[in-house]
Amino acid sequence: MPDNSIYTNGRGYLLPKIPIVVICYDGFDPSYLADAAIRRISPRVSDMAENGFYASAHSAMPSFTNPNNVSIVCGAPPRVHGISGNYWYDRATGKEVMMTDAGPLSAPTILAGLSQAGVKVAAVTAKDKLRKALAVGLAGEGLQGIAFSAEKASACTVAEHGISGEEAQAGQPVPDQYSPELSLFVLDAGLRLLRTGRAQVLYLSLSDFVQHAHAPGAPESDAFIRSVDRRVGALLDEGATVGIVADHGMTDLSLADGSPNILYLGDRLDARYGAGQTRVICPITDPFVRHHGALGGFVRVHILGDLDHDEVRDFVSRLPGVELALPREEMCRRFDQPMEREGDVAVIAGKGVALGTHKGAHALGELAGARLRSHGSVAERDVPFLVSQPLNATYRRKAATEQLHNYDIFDFVLNGTRSEGN
Amino acid sequence: MPDNSIYTNGRGYLLPKIPIVVICYDGFDPSYLADAAIRRISPRVSDMAENGFYASAHSAMPSFTNPNNVSIVCGAPPRVHGISGNYWYDRATGKEVMMTDAGPLSAPTILAGLSQAGVKVAAVTAKDKLRKALAVGLAGEGLQGIAFSAEKASACTVAEHGISGEEAQAGQPVPDQYSPELSLFVLDAGLRLLRTGRAQVLYLSLSDFVQHAHAPGAPESDAFIRSVDRRVGALLDEGATVGIVADHGMTDLSLADGSPNILYLGDRLDARYGAGQTRVICPITDPFVRHHGALGGFVRVHILGDLDHDEVRDFVSRLPGVELALPREEMCRRFDQPMEREGDVAVIAGKGVALGTHKGAHALGELAGARLRSHGSVAERDVPFLVSQPLNATYRRKAATEQLHNYDIFDFVLNGTRSEGN
Repeated sequence: MPDNSIYTNGRGYLLPKIPIVVICYDGFDPSYLADAAIRRISPRVSDMAENGFYASAHSAMPSFTNPNNVSIVCGAPPRVHGISGNYWYDRATGKEVMMTDAGPLSAPTILAGLSQAGVKVAAVTAKDKLRKALAVGLAGEGLQGIAFSAEKASACTVAEHGISGEEAQAGQPVPDQYSPELSLFVLDAGLRLLRTGRAQVLYLSLSDFVQHAHAPGAPESDAFIRSVDRRVGALLDEGATVGIVADHGMTDLSLADGSPNILYLGDRLDARYGAGQTRVICPITDPFVRHHGALGGFVRVHILGDLDHDEVRDFVSRLPGVELALPREEMCRRFDQPMEREGDVAVIAGKGVALGTHKGAHALGELAGARLRSHGSVAERDVPFLVSQPLNATYRRKAATEQLHNYDIFDFVLNGTRSEGN
Repeated sequence: MPDNSIYTNGRGYLLPKIPIVVICYDGFDPSYLADAAIRRISPRVSDMAENGFYASAHSAMPSFTNPNNVSIVCGAPPRVHGISGNYWYDRATGKEVMMTDAGPLSAPTILAGLSQAGVKVAAVTAKDKLRKALAVGLAGEGLQGIAFSAEKASACTVAEHGISGEEAQAGQPVPDQYSPELSLFVLDAGLRLLRTGRAQVLYLSLSDFVQHAHAPGAPESDAFIRSVDRRVGALLDEGATVGIVADHGMTDLSLADGSPNILYLGDRLDARYGAGQTRVICPITDPFVRHHGALGGFVRVHILGDLDHDEVRDFVSRLPGVELALPREEMCRRFDQPMEREGDVAVIAGKGVALGTHKGAHALGELAGARLRSHGSVAERDVPFLVSQPLNATYRRKAATEQLHNYDIFDFVLNGTRSEGN
């Protein structure tokens, strides 16, 4: 590669000449973007669509937060980097663990590559779990970049985060983890890093707290969208090229009376095969249960007993509410998953249906009577893909002929906005 | 072909040895089926899934009623039979017409084939427009089959419908076209035809009036699902093999306050290119506007002026709310559409977004304050596919390895439930 570029996971990325900001607008379903454009409540983002580039892209599957954030910063799907859910059943130990705690990513990140090539890079996330995964090769001992979370901003150290707690927090109160302000803190921190010249490439990853709780057009989501828009505008006004994608969409999984439409797969499997024969893992599980009670549109079934795998797959696939039940190999082939972390049967819900383990095992009380809105299935795979600058001819052609993924965003922002022959 | 089978549109169908009923459960989104199974409000249909066969299938695109009903009875997608919407802009005449009024289908139906092979066949539809399309080669002068609609049951004649008005109506009141009873009339009529030996193969096509108006779990949709279930049970109790598919799913296209999330594409195009340069056709348009105000997730753009087609496609594709904007050839290739009826640009909405022509041009008042629930896009492409009998090994394999479509249902019911080597 020429020395004005890096090469990461099979793709080349030009080093930026102007500041670059990529925002992961967590849970920003295309229906929010459409409504915001129609009612003009997000003028700067709408302007990006109108005068830069907009398309509907696919997220990585399953349509969850961690797999998609990691895919975006790697420019590659879960098959390459190994993070195929938030939560994982490790067959070797029989334990359920957060995937981001299961060791380093099996692929380098674009952020690390750029930083090691001398570009000033910063990643700011809403939640600290995700920050740890994104910081590999970027921030920490002997590294030059910055990586911190809004959640733990005050506890930052230069040694671990590349920035002091004082500078990361900048006198702002650290917001509650269940608040719109958590995302706004991320954007404000990014803006400060940009203005002070501390970063030339920024990855800013928000929280979907608002989208889990509020449909498009609700006063709460309107207010949040306006607040994000003002900050996107400020980043643009600093001269940055901005790319925005979502990690996944969001669907209302409730019935007419507001109760959730849940298929408890663990109960069904136990009734059919006996308790302890199978284990259902909900890879949406994370420490932030109030968002969704660990209920989403994708689960993995691990077969522990001596059961015929095809028979189990066939049984699951015939349950109304299941859109697809795939054997491990087929799931990995069709949806670019890593084999070693796939279930024996991967289960994708139909649109509008949540998959759970056992009645009573999910913290539904945490929803406090709100409608269940969640993600994980193919119905939440479509996500907005926005670039603030028009694309060059090569990337316009690419966009018109290939299926875009959210993890193409760094490619489009770094390479697709450069004049050709550059 | 052996004389115990017919050959239609490239596939062979075994003549049935026992009665066969295929139901098009109009607008029966998988989320209704899942909820009905979970709460056991549709025991006979749930039992079909458990002890027969269930899978999530694709409908034909666009996910509208007429293209899918015709696809189901042809066993083939719109490319083969030419019905790619309810409504169509005929470039040659400059007129907008109902596709089912535009002349006969360009493909024969399985119903006609079976009837001409001596099988007693009847098609009963909710609406009369659709009946006309399905009756070709089946009922009318010199033909042996029966085809009538609930809407016009009392006006039937033996010459045109293969049944008298008196027999078709059977003393039942003809239901209002905006009522759940319209669909129930169809099922009751089918049951009578089966019991009296008037038909051995039945195609029963319902109305989605209830699903447009009521989400899963609403008392109105619960009551409708229970009423349909009892009739499905009665058909099963008569010894029929029953297949059930939907023509399309259903999605809530409303904002938090209940107002519809509509992108008026005609207004956008006029603002950009001037009035009269383009025409937006909503192929969901039918005489039953109260269902949906002619608003759905798919429209066709015809370019009348001297505009660059790629530029228009590019402009449309960059509007938030648009998932895909495809040139005619690409739409036809990817979604099996007939070229002569495709727009210059085919536009598929994002999940949760309705595409309209001009503000004020849609009969929103007809919704009477109800939330807009509609279909047409990829988000409503997934539909239930149910067979009351277990499949033979060949069709089990087929189901596990191929993408099923609702228009495979006659193949599965007629061929897939027969013992192998039959």
